[in-house]
Amino acid sequence: MQKNKKTSVIANEKIDKVKLSDADEIILDLQSQLKKYINKGYGPFLAAIYDSNGRLIAHAANSVVNKSCSHNHAEMNAIKLEEKKLGTHDLSKYNLSIYVTSEPCMMCLGSIMWSGIRAIYYGVPSERVAKITGFDEGFKPEWFDEFKKRGITVYGQIETDAGEQVLQNYVTQGHTVYKPKRNYFARATRTIHKFLRRTICIRSEKI
Amino acid sequence: MQKNKKTSVIANEKIDKVKLSDADEIILDLQSQLKKYINKGYGPFLAAIYDSNGRLIAHAANSVVNKSCSHNHAEMNAIKLEEKKLGTHDLSKYNLSIYVTSEPCMMCLGSIMWSGIRAIYYGVPSERVAKITGFDEGFKPEWFDEFKKRGITVYGQIETDAGEQVLQNYVTQGHTVYKPKRNYFARATRTIHKFLRRTICIRSEKI
Repeated sequence: MQKNKKTSVIANEKIDKVKLSDADEIILDLQSQLKKYINKGYGPFLAAIYDSNGRLIAHAANSVVNKSCSHNHAEMNAIKLEEKKLGTHDLSKYNLSIYVTSEPCMMCLGSIMWSGIRAIYYGVPSERVAKITGFDEGFKPEWFDEFKKRGITVYGQIETDAGEQVLQNYVTQGHTVYKPKRNYFARATRTIHKFLRRTICIRSEKI
Repeated sequence: MQKNKKTSVIANEKIDKVKLSDADEIILDLQSQLKKYINKGYGPFLAAIYDSNGRLIAHAANSVVNKSCSHNHAEMNAIKLEEKKLGTHDLSKYNLSIYVTSEPCMMCLGSIMWSGIRAIYYGVPSERVAKITGFDEGFKPEWFDEFKKRGITVYGQIETDAGEQVLQNYVTQGHTVYKPKRNYFARATRTIHKFLRRTICIRSEKI
């Protein structure tokens, strides 16, 4: 893994100043646009796909809650949009890059690999996203190396201050941090046990 | 991880004979149905979601190639269908289980976690899928433990003989093993270099 000494940026190739400068600009712009999406009910993540000439070709925010589908992460929405537009499941020949306001979760990493996208640039790392918001980002050890094996370039931790601020505001303003209610049955079972214990006690008293 | 001595079945809890017997039956049935989907142009994977009363509530095959979207794995299609039907991004309160003919890829593991599905039962393990077909299934070390941490039950390697036979037939019959053309640019560069070398040689000869 390569590190930029002046910033916290990391990459799975020797850091290219031009690529990083472009990514800085795009990700700062995405962080700035994200606020208006959040105010419209979208989740706090935004993704954009660019071609090798620097032309924006797809752009989408997280719509898990407002469109009622757990797949609708920003990266997934942008990739789906682009594949639909081009009528193909394989974007590899278009030499595309995806820029995301935060590090992709496990599902989105899979999705990026299968789509044929050739480079990813992201803002806030998952551990900071989890700490600030409470979102579960999955398990994805050494994914920079795994992407390198598959020929996919990765640059991460770009313009993190701006990104963390947006996430912090999302939480402070009380927007939804969605996640499956994992303890639903455990809670239900505890409630039933409690009820049964109480009923049995009451009956015992009556006897 | 728990192992059944008589079969190759593995699980992230003490193996429950009733759950396994139900899963055997469902997965064998899915493997059998899968053939007709393959003949209609679908990919070689099928998933079904059941509720806790054993009622089938969603059913879908892989449609990456015939619907031109790299997200359209069987598990993704089934989950999306169910979330659409119920109008929610969180299936956790419905206590659902997903049955799949092969081990889910990295993207689908993420998707299952985020959907709130509470149990997964699968047939052929990824390493066999990769060996037979050449599909890339991603990187997902120790996912049985990660699912356990999140309260999701996993049973794997169920009725693998039948499953491997379907995959083997898929390959023998010449159906598409889709994957992004990762070496597209490397190949293009090699071709240009070859052409330039030839051109330079011819010019040199002329001189």
